[in-house]
Amino acid sequence: MAWHATVITLFPEMFPGPLGVSLAGRARADGAWSLDTVNPRDFATDKHRSIDDTPFGGGPGMVLRADILTAAIEAAAPARDARPRLLMTPRGAPLTQKRVRSLAAGPGAVIVCGRFEGVDERVIAGCALEEISVSDAVLSGGEPAALLVLDACVRLLPGTMGHDASGDSESFEQNLLEYPQFTKPQEWRGQTVPEVLTSGDHKAVAAWRRTEALKATRTRRPDLFAKYVAALGSVVDKPPKTE
Amino acid sequence: MAWHATVITLFPEMFPGPLGVSLAGRARADGAWSLDTVNPRDFATDKHRSIDDTPFGGGPGMVLRADILTAAIEAAAPARDARPRLLMTPRGAPLTQKRVRSLAAGPGAVIVCGRFEGVDERVIAGCALEEISVSDAVLSGGEPAALLVLDACVRLLPGTMGHDASGDSESFEQNLLEYPQFTKPQEWRGQTVPEVLTSGDHKAVAAWRRTEALKATRTRRPDLFAKYVAALGSVVDKPPKTE
Repeated sequence: MAWHATVITLFPEMFPGPLGVSLAGRARADGAWSLDTVNPRDFATDKHRSIDDTPFGGGPGMVLRADILTAAIEAAAPARDARPRLLMTPRGAPLTQKRVRSLAAGPGAVIVCGRFEGVDERVIAGCALEEISVSDAVLSGGEPAALLVLDACVRLLPGTMGHDASGDSESFEQNLLEYPQFTKPQEWRGQTVPEVLTSGDHKAVAAWRRTEALKATRTRRPDLFAKYVAALGSVVDKPPKTE
Repeated sequence: MAWHATVITLFPEMFPGPLGVSLAGRARADGAWSLDTVNPRDFATDKHRSIDDTPFGGGPGMVLRADILTAAIEAAAPARDARPRLLMTPRGAPLTQKRVRSLAAGPGAVIVCGRFEGVDERVIAGCALEEISVSDAVLSGGEPAALLVLDACVRLLPGTMGHDASGDSESFEQNLLEYPQFTKPQEWRGQTVPEVLTSGDHKAVAAWRRTEALKATRTRRPDLFAKYVAALGSVVDKPPKTE
């Protein structure tokens, strides 16, 4: 069965949005993945179709109700549905490429988009939601984050990417940023490309790229660099194989 | 003049996408912000309208050409255009709510969406691009990240948010995650809300929420918690005011 995403959102018209175009759009048309949406408003029980209420304890904004949201989630993904259930929330664990890769390798995902001041906390344990955050910025709701997660997953599905460079040289795969890239024209506004890249010396190119990736990671992302170094350590610490 | 975004993208049909709906869509209809797109393909100079080429030094994928992309950026934002120019790239600085707030307070943004294996490195200094990353995941291109940045900015524009809780209690504003939220029904599937939230004791509620925010940040985001503690330190270190 194709990879299947269900997004629980008050704004189903936001989907597939950008995922209807380009690689993701073609992959969806080809049946490599599918998408549907469930609107919590369809599970409201009063005549105003309310889905939220004021927070206990006071404060601004509105909170998505546990009963309504749970009904939507259970309709979207009954207990036998093995797909992981994500909640896009600034309180979540930051998204990683490792998590993206494991999601893409699975049957799909159910993605709950928060709105307003958040969702009733009881839903999270009650529906076994995995809280995921995408960047330390506050969004109008979980929808842009859900689109981003889906984009990252879909490009890894078989047959989706434009080329098969799915592997180890990609950003974040080894906690390293990518090296800088250059293409034609070789000289442009008085700037040439680094000589090594036109030397034809593949070993020298690989060494230069490795150094540049390390330099960029160390200066731009000391947090990633620390993880890279820690992973090196665990390799070094491994006892040597005996024959 | 209204806040103005220009997105440089090979897929202009992805915009406004989700930003055409809900708060952002209404704000755009009301003139609180505006959006246009520029397609680098319109600046291609050969009959195939090529915008990319193979990377110097070899390797998979294609790199966006410096000459074509620069022509697009300069057409979108001539030198007198004071808007910051962002490049969405996994090599960039992670987006923060602080940067979002300063972007929203300015005249707008020019956002360049990378694709393929990246852009020719010479464009970045040549066009004074600020490299920004949104989450440590690899995307099909910069477009989902650009939508996310725009969503975060637009909700801060005057008159855009549904309520005016734009302030200090939001996620990330003080390097703290938000406290958990609860709303009606008070009892649901045998679970009640924490007693303090229905006590009517505003001081106790505030104290509980503060503790919960600290606990969540410390356990879920030690990186943010370290920043929070460091900021506390700098407050404590300040010499007392003399009369």
